[in-house]
Parts: sequence; C-alpha cells; structure tokens
Amino acid sequence: MKKLLFLVLLFSFCVYGQTEDEKQLRAIYDKALLDARGYDWLEHLSNQIGPRLSGSLNAERAVTYMREQLDSLGLDRVWLQPVMVPKWVRGIPEVAYIETSPGMTNNVPICALGGSVATPAGGLKAKVVEVQGLEDLAALGREKIEGRIVFYNRPMQANLIETFEAYGGCVDQRYSGAREAAKYGAAGVIVRSMNLRLDDLPHAGAMSYGDLPAEQRIPAAAISTNGAELLSGMLTLNPEINFYFKQNCRQLADVQSYNVIGEIKGSEHPGEVMVVGGHLDSWDLGDGAHDDGAGCVQSMEVLRLLRETGYRPKRTLRVVLFMNEENGLRGGNKYAEVAREKNEKHVFALESDAGGFTPRGFTLECTDEQYELILNWKPLFEPYLIHLFQRGYSGADIRPLKGGDLLLAGLRPDSQRYFDHHHAANDTFEHVNKRELQLGAATMAALVYLVDKYL
Amino acid sequence: MKKLLFLVLLFSFCVYGQTEDEKQLRAIYDKALLDARGYDWLEHLSNQIGPRLSGSLNAERAVTYMREQLDSLGLDRVWLQPVMVPKWVRGIPEVAYIETSPGMTNNVPICALGGSVATPAGGLKAKVVEVQGLEDLAALGREKIEGRIVFYNRPMQANLIETFEAYGGCVDQRYSGAREAAKYGAAGVIVRSMNLRLDDLPHAGAMSYGDLPAEQRIPAAAISTNGAELLSGMLTLNPEINFYFKQNCRQLADVQSYNVIGEIKGSEHPGEVMVVGGHLDSWDLGDGAHDDGAGCVQSMEVLRLLRETGYRPKRTLRVVLFMNEENGLRGGNKYAEVAREKNEKHVFALESDAGGFTPRGFTLECTDEQYELILNWKPLFEPYLIHLFQRGYSGADIRPLKGGDLLLAGLRPDSQRYFDHHHAANDTFEHVNKRELQLGAATMAALVYLVDKYL
Repeated sequence: MKKLLFLVLLFSFCVYGQTEDEKQLRAIYDKALLDARGYDWLEHLSNQIGPRLSGSLNAERAVTYMREQLDSLGLDRVWLQPVMVPKWVRGIPEVAYIETSPGMTNNVPICALGGSVATPAGGLKAKVVEVQGLEDLAALGREKIEGRIVFYNRPMQANLIETFEAYGGCVDQRYSGAREAAKYGAAGVIVRSMNLRLDDLPHAGAMSYGDLPAEQRIPAAAISTNGAELLSGMLTLNPEINFYFKQNCRQLADVQSYNVIGEIKGSEHPGEVMVVGGHLDSWDLGDGAHDDGAGCVQSMEVLRLLRETGYRPKRTLRVVLFMNEENGLRGGNKYAEVAREKNEKHVFALESDAGGFTPRGFTLECTDEQYELILNWKPLFEPYLIHLFQRGYSGADIRPLKGGDLLLAGLRPDSQRYFDHHHAANDTFEHVNKRELQLGAATMAALVYLVDKYL
Repeated sequence: MKKLLFLVLLFSFCVYGQTEDEKQLRAIYDKALLDARGYDWLEHLSNQIGPRLSGSLNAERAVTYMREQLDSLGLDRVWLQPVMVPKWVRGIPEVAYIETSPGMTNNVPICALGGSVATPAGGLKAKVVEVQGLEDLAALGREKIEGRIVFYNRPMQANLIETFEAYGGCVDQRYSGAREAAKYGAAGVIVRSMNLRLDDLPHAGAMSYGDLPAEQRIPAAAISTNGAELLSGMLTLNPEINFYFKQNCRQLADVQSYNVIGEIKGSEHPGEVMVVGGHLDSWDLGDGAHDDGAGCVQSMEVLRLLRETGYRPKRTLRVVLFMNEENGLRGGNKYAEVAREKNEKHVFALESDAGGFTPRGFTLECTDEQYELILNWKPLFEPYLIHLFQRGYSGADIRPLKGGDLLLAGLRPDSQRYFDHHHAANDTFEHVNKRELQLGAATMAALVYLVDKYL
C-alpha cells in the first residue's frame, strides 16, 4: 500500500513536470500500445475479408465492416459516400513459360497487370526483346519490336535509401510500357516486378493504355524478379527464344461503391475540416494488409485515440477510407469533388499509404510558415523516435483536395521491407507487426492534435 | 553513348559538390546495399550451421567458418583467441502441463533456462504461487512458498518505445528468480517469457544461482506468454491446481573455444586499436540470426566495406567475434584480459548486438568531448535516416574493455520486433531483411571511418 502511494506520488510528480502537449502525446502513445484496436480491425479486414479489389464482393464487405466499426466508436456522424468504380477482373490464374526450343519450357510466375486486356484464348507466344525502359523503344524502332513481346527489365535501384524513390524510378515501365510498346507494333509486354529482392512473386499494379484505340491494346503482365533474371539470362544465351503467356483478365462496366466516412464535429470551428485517411481497396493477390489496410485502421485509430484520451478537436475531424486508389483514384477524386460542391473548407489532410511499418515521420506539402511551425514540434516527437519532417509528396487520395493553404501530409514509415510485399501475394496480415502499426497510428494522432491546436 | 557521357558528367558534378566525408559515406552505403556479403555470410551461419550454443559442435563449426571468411578478406592478420567456455546442454525436449484435477491436463510450451539444473527424472509436480517479481517473495514468506513452484509473471511493459527498456524491467525474474525463490524453499521456478506479444514460443536465456550451494538449486524454465496467460487464468479460478514440468538439462565441464579475430594494421598509429564486434554464440532454439549472427556479419562487413571503398584506417581496426556472450561472457572477458596483459591501447569499441533491423543510430559511453564531436557528424548521417546519438549502454562483450578515455558504442537498430524473436525458436534467417541488415553494417562502417579520422 505504501509502495502504491509512493508510485502515485512519483507519477504525479513526473506528470507535473511535463507540458500539456507532452502529456497528451504520452497519453496517445500509451493508449495506442496498450489498447490496440487498429490491429484487431486489421486482422478482421485481412483474414476474415481478404483482398479488396475495387468492384469486388470483398470490397463491398469491407465497406460494410468498416462502417460498422466506425459506428461503434460513438462519432458524431458516419456515412457512405457513393462513387462509381472500375471493375477489372483477373480471371483464371495466368500461365507463362520460356520456350528455349519446341517442347523445352520453363514455367515462370507472372500476373496480369491491372487494366490489361487478355491474351488470345490460347495464349500468346512470341520472340522477346529486352529493354531497360521506355526510352529504348525509339532506338530499337518498329523493325525490332513488331510482333515481339517487349520485356522491360530495369530493376529498382538498390542503393537508394528511400525505397519509394527506387519505385518511382521504375514504375513508368509498368504503367506506360504496354501503351508505348504497342505504338511500335509489339505483341505484348512483360514487366519486371517492382521488388528489391529476388523472389518468385509477381507484383501486380495498375497500367494504362491512355487513349490507345481498343484494337491496338496489347496484353501486359508482371514477371517475378527471379523469373526476370532467368528470362534475361536465357536471352543472353539465345536471343531467339520464345515467351508464352496466357491471361484472361478483363474490364467490366463500372459498379457502385463507396468511400466510408466518419467524423467528430469541431468544438470551435465545425466548418473547418481535417481529414485522415487511407484507401480501403487493395490488389487481389494478397490481403492488402500493408497496402492499405494498415492506413485505414491507423486513420480510424486517430479518432479513437483522441477521443479516448479526452481530446475534443476544435475543428471537424474526419476519417475517410477511400475506395479505388489502386486502379482509378475514383474515391479520392469523388471526395474532393463533393467537398468543392459543398464548399467545405479543408485545412489539413493526412494520409497513411506506405505500409504499417515503424513510423519515421512525415512528408509535407505546405507553405513555408506551416513548415516552420511543424519543425517546432520535433522535440515533442523525439521520445517516440519520430525524426523525419521533410517536404515532399503526401498521398494519392488526398491530393485532389490540394489548393490554397491546405496542409497535406503523408505518414512515412520505414520503407526497407515495403516492396518485398507491395501488390504481391505476401502482402498479408502476418507481415504486419502490432507495435509498428500502432506506433504509426499514435504518430498520426499526435500530428492531428498539434495541427488542430496550433495551426 | 552520349547518354553515358552525360551521366558520367552529371555524376562527376554531383560528387564534386560533396565533401570527402559525404563521398566516403555514400560509397560505404552503396557498397553495402549493392554487394551484400554480410547477408550471404549470415545465410550460411544460420542455415548451414544453425544454433551455436557455447561449447557445442555448431559453435566450433561457426568458429571455423567465420575464420575462413575472414581469411578470404585479405586482412593483415586473422587468428583465434583461445577461451574456456561453459557447456550447458538442454537434453531431451522439455514437457510441461497444468493439472486442474487428477488426469485433467493442459500442455504448455516451456524451455529450461540456461544454467538451470534438471528436474527429478520423473519430473516435478507441485502447487503454484504466482508473483509479479522478486520483491513479492519476502511478503509471501517461506510459509506460502515452500514446496511450491514460483511463477514469475510480470510482463514486459508494452508502452515503452524502446523495447530493451521493457526487457530490462523484467529480466531479473529470469536471471535471479530461481536463486531467490530457493531461499524460501520453492521447489522450482517458471518464468513468463520476455516477449511483448502473446504467442506459443518459450524464450530461453541465462539464469544464475549465484553462490547457492548445489543441493539448494531448483529447476527453472521459461513458459510462453500464451502459456503464462493460461496458467494465470487457471490460478484465478483455482489457486490449488498443480503444475508439472520435466527437463534433463545439465552443466558439463568447461570446454575449449575461441574468439575469432581479424585485423587491418593501422597506417599511422598501429598501436592504437579500434574494435568492432558481435557475439558468435547463440541460444539453441532458433539459429541465432538476429542474436547475434547479424552483429557478427555486420562487424565483418565494416572491415570489408572500408577496404573495398579504398579507406585505409590510421589506427588498427579489429573485428572480434566474441564467444559465449549468452551464458558466461567468457569471450568478452578474455579479450579484455589479453588486451591488458599485452598493454594494448584501445581507443574505440563498437558492438552490434540488438538485432539486424533498420539502424536508427548509436548509444555511446563516452566523455563529454567525445559526445560533442560525434554530434557534429549528425548531418552526415541524415541522408541514411540515422538520427539517434544518445548516451547509454554500449554492449556486453566490449564493456570489459571499459576504462580511461575509451569510446564505447552500440548500434541501435529499430527495436520493435526484436523481442518477438529473442532467444526463441523463431530467431531465424528468414526474419532478417537483407537491406536492414546491410544498412546496419554501413552505419557501423561510417562511424568507424569518422572516429578513425577525427577522434
């Protein structure tokens, strides 16, 4: 009993020595680590629902589940915002092989890229031309490309510390590779997976034909990094080998879906809105735990953590779970469109869409004055090992809101492992660490608290 | 060709704008990420050799392998430093269950703690007294402890950001629990595993009887966190349930082993020694990839990275792979003893023994002047997201060297996942990320370079 009294006194003293902001951040992080709702939500979303490609049944189940969870939080308002989304379906599992001579084949793992057309029903077999990027096509010319499969094989640059930079340096091959190769008469496109390690998992992702007429569209698939190495090696030995692949994916008509939204009304400035969000849709190969189930549950946690630590925001705080980031951005665009129609004033938007790994800080799209203000908060974050406050890209779903003095921010988790899982079959719940996920949620809540108080 | 020329010019320009230190750090990180020998060494150590408990055949195989690898690096000298080590063996797999009534049993996962005695051959069955720590024993007194199994169940504190702090707040139960409980006549000891999550893996680790006479020594085992929760829950329902466990571990006579050492002779001050190291022994349940295979291969990488980026240290740079950190620290003590005998002047020692996760920085045991100097280097580390330069504990193996102006440092990787694996069956190679491991090696090499140049 004496010991208890001593501990209470000690605790009072410690708290007494802290500023109100220090106390609030400590309360947020304690709550996030000791009572981890986000991790439970993510478990359900990942394991009980699973992959959530836009337009799929699972995406709709996710909408229902997340709405129910938001309802249970006692917010001031929860609603669904209708948005029409594209519906692309993979069809039966893809097949691919390298044929060194008739009948001598090596299977390799591929997956159709999102938005791609199918191959002919019997598959597509053609000779291959390997390139290091879009810019190689013109040099080769139609003569060396026509009728062939263009194999884009520029790897991610491993010596970049921020792996998203390495991704940015390669992703044009995936997004625009088919469109550009088609202009030279290519029969199809195979793209090296956007992955920094060698493994057997093909990584999906969006591609676009732009305004290419339907009859000129050629099928596009990603090949695993090991498969790409094998294919490249075999081409060195014999440039005339064949590559075969078959996929029967297709684009269906748009379907109805929803952004899932919840809000706490601001106590002083209800007309000023702060948004935290992630995207609810995912690719279809894994369960989308990192991309972006993590961002969704972290964003929901922001509202819960602030509520349960007794902080009532002055401004209206809204969580938005955007639909269709992966292959259309319809949810992000719709949210911004409705906000403009209703003449809502958005002052702050924060997105988490870089995985549920240990948070390191934020990238910010902001004015100089806002940046100065935020840098003042660095010492408050130090006890939580949050050190990165850097100007840079925030997040795809919130960027359609951009304009005026709107402060945009993106959570930056440690990025070293992200592309081992990104858009692949191993983006699954067991690769999310509970503490890392919850630290991200707390870090977001801490920033929202400070922005609401001081901006 | 024109493009190549342009890139060369661009590169020259960029390099021209950098200081020599910036260039050297960039070269170190590039090398570490693009040509990752450390990861290959760790693969062999983990998968081809495996667990390396002191005194085991595997520990000797690891000595031989690592020596060969050091030989292949073209260092100035590689040698083995003899050291006698304890040999404790686990024996046949442990068995444990909770008995709620005669014949009604629930198996639970346990493992004998390192250094523990065996139970009687038929096992030990007794009633249980649950405590929250050593300090509870006196309050209970002999009457409530005698003949019972003491169950230490204080969990790691989940709201601490640095998980090593949470470990430090619990580990006395494991290390001293049996010694203290024996003084009150306990029959045995069961300790909650030092793990921040709930799972089914018991975590090994060292315990000590101190100077307790042999006949008073009681068996001690760790129970998985799920097992601890189950046992605690059942005790709430019925405090008189029995716990049974059986283990036939034992302590054999000391055996000959070795520290593995390699060095590059200093170009200007060969008499001044800098040490980088980790420990080569591990617990016997996993393969010791994080604890501390990672630290060993990172330390070897330091010498390789400096050599292959063309840096010749002014002082003698030595890698030491210490034997027997886990259950005796004989290697660390022997190395310091020999250094004193030979009157070697050590100026810097750096240890990596906190897992192969993304590096965040260093803890330092240093003078005020040294600390000021090191803080000046922070901007050089910023591009690599290294931000933590904090005074604090360095590492167990290098601390016996402590004295005078010796600068001691410990690599601090992100600690969130460490205790999911620490001393357990899942401390295995597949849980080490290549990039994270190699970034740690580069960060160590960068610090060694700066210390050599400016200290």
